[in-house]
Amino acid sequence: MDLTNHQIRLAARPSGLPKPSDWEHTTEPVRDPGDDEVLVKTLYLSLDPAMRGWMNEGRSYIEPVGLGDVMRAGGVGQVLASRNPGLPEGAHVSGLLGAQEYATLPARAVIPVDPSLAPLPVYLGALGMTGMTAYFGLLDVGQAKEGETVVVSGAAGAVGSVTGQLAKIKGCRAVGIAGGEEKCRWIVDELGFDAAIDYKSEDVGRALRTHAPDGVDVYFDNVGGDILDAVLVRLARHARVVICGAVSQYNAPGQMRGPANYMMLLVNRARMEGFVVFDYAARYGEAAKELAGWLADGSLKAREDIVPGGLDAFHDTLLKLFAGENVGKLVLKVADD
Amino acid sequence: MDLTNHQIRLAARPSGLPKPSDWEHTTEPVRDPGDDEVLVKTLYLSLDPAMRGWMNEGRSYIEPVGLGDVMRAGGVGQVLASRNPGLPEGAHVSGLLGAQEYATLPARAVIPVDPSLAPLPVYLGALGMTGMTAYFGLLDVGQAKEGETVVVSGAAGAVGSVTGQLAKIKGCRAVGIAGGEEKCRWIVDELGFDAAIDYKSEDVGRALRTHAPDGVDVYFDNVGGDILDAVLVRLARHARVVICGAVSQYNAPGQMRGPANYMMLLVNRARMEGFVVFDYAARYGEAAKELAGWLADGSLKAREDIVPGGLDAFHDTLLKLFAGENVGKLVLKVADD
Repeated sequence: MDLTNHQIRLAARPSGLPKPSDWEHTTEPVRDPGDDEVLVKTLYLSLDPAMRGWMNEGRSYIEPVGLGDVMRAGGVGQVLASRNPGLPEGAHVSGLLGAQEYATLPARAVIPVDPSLAPLPVYLGALGMTGMTAYFGLLDVGQAKEGETVVVSGAAGAVGSVTGQLAKIKGCRAVGIAGGEEKCRWIVDELGFDAAIDYKSEDVGRALRTHAPDGVDVYFDNVGGDILDAVLVRLARHARVVICGAVSQYNAPGQMRGPANYMMLLVNRARMEGFVVFDYAARYGEAAKELAGWLADGSLKAREDIVPGGLDAFHDTLLKLFAGENVGKLVLKVADD
Repeated sequence: MDLTNHQIRLAARPSGLPKPSDWEHTTEPVRDPGDDEVLVKTLYLSLDPAMRGWMNEGRSYIEPVGLGDVMRAGGVGQVLASRNPGLPEGAHVSGLLGAQEYATLPARAVIPVDPSLAPLPVYLGALGMTGMTAYFGLLDVGQAKEGETVVVSGAAGAVGSVTGQLAKIKGCRAVGIAGGEEKCRWIVDELGFDAAIDYKSEDVGRALRTHAPDGVDVYFDNVGGDILDAVLVRLARHARVVICGAVSQYNAPGQMRGPANYMMLLVNRARMEGFVVFDYAARYGEAAKELAGWLADGSLKAREDIVPGGLDAFHDTLLKLFAGENVGKLVLKVADD
């Protein structure tokens, strides 16, 4: 096909917040698919705090994006050409398409999604990695049980908003920590959290004494920093702290700040555990089925914050995550369905 | 009985290292035992880093020692008078006798020990809380398994020296981190650790690359601070970090320092877990039986650092712990057997 691919490549490793000059916008002809490959047109890209980590050099749970490489990004798109019988032209798929308008990649690197069951962006949110992360983090790592108190930070964000709703579905008390009155109102009034704490206007430690009077059984942490320290002080005995992310620290200059109150793990015979959702790939089907059921019966509400503007808006949209500006799953619209 | 009891009471809550003025030496008549009580003469007192925490105000795993109260301390002693048929006069017992020459306390607050099986100070070390802490921390919390690499800090200290030996008994590779050449030589040559890292003269992170080339499966942490951070970077996948203590931080002015590299828990799908040995009281018998067997067959070596001088030496002896001066279990001899 005679198509031109616009791409965003990593030009420099940022220190602190990414700058426009950390990216290079490139153009190249689209490559036709080879054996067992598909050519996918990117429709939506997922923007995630984890992307900031992928831009750094050094050992992590996944290879860093190489300098000069197309930025790694999950996305959903449509198959334009296929050399694999299982994925015909016109099929919709999700996978690591990258920050580009077209991706030519092995058929096994994408999975089919059904736009008649849910709008495409939902496959980046509640039915995508976001939902998987909340599901396995809360239930498998966090071992949340009926009657327990679950606290989640970044509660109006993609993963946090699903996590709190899953806690409610499982019969837990759900307390969300979010920044600003609007987000706090949304998670309680729309999503059904039992309580919200506005870390911008409230003392988190004091508010936890009110909203988690018997202590925190499961803390699902997306933010790190001061909020993690405040929750550690309010852990219940045998609490589980699930380390999903640390968005408050990703752009901090110099070294990250560790949780000064980590000895509360000893005081409370508690554990802090990290996880990577990719490890649960064999069980995605199980989670997707449950999540789809809850979406269908209304007990789980998906919300996407869809930003138009195509790849040109990639940089500014990414920064919304670190300014705490998104509500729900942040998605960049790259092309019309 | 007409006996005078010398006692050491907490006079002030220290900031930083305890000072002589944080203690008050008092004298009072010994109280005769009431119903079901025993009067015990203190022979040896256990000195532990945890004592520093007990001197602080505020919530912890155990009530702080009250200002004006006799300092809490584990000890072994001999029953001088008894109002309980199970503990006759002359019996040897261990329990929280406190920093005093005589303790009058409920019979159920002490347990009998047998000086014909092991010297009395061993009941404060390998057969006492020290041994229990190493046993349950390594095997229950840390879940150390044959063939895994176990790293322990404070490796020449009371708990650390037993932990490394238990790791060897269980078929693990044992790497100890200790301060100074003499301690390092002792844990390898005498105790059978596979390797030692002298944190005073070596870069711990680099040394771990040599001595734990496949990563650290279990890290038993007694010290916190820089060493905890260095080990976090070298964790193996699904590692367990056992939080037993943080002696490097107990006397730090201001706030404790948290582990800046805690996100390595996520990278490595690892957990960090705290525990309190008292929770295992129902299983002390099981552990004591195993530990006694290993002591008897020589696979476990107990070493006590017994300081003479009675209660007058209490303060100076306690400080040895924070200067890293003791090798093995630090014990204060209070009176002759």
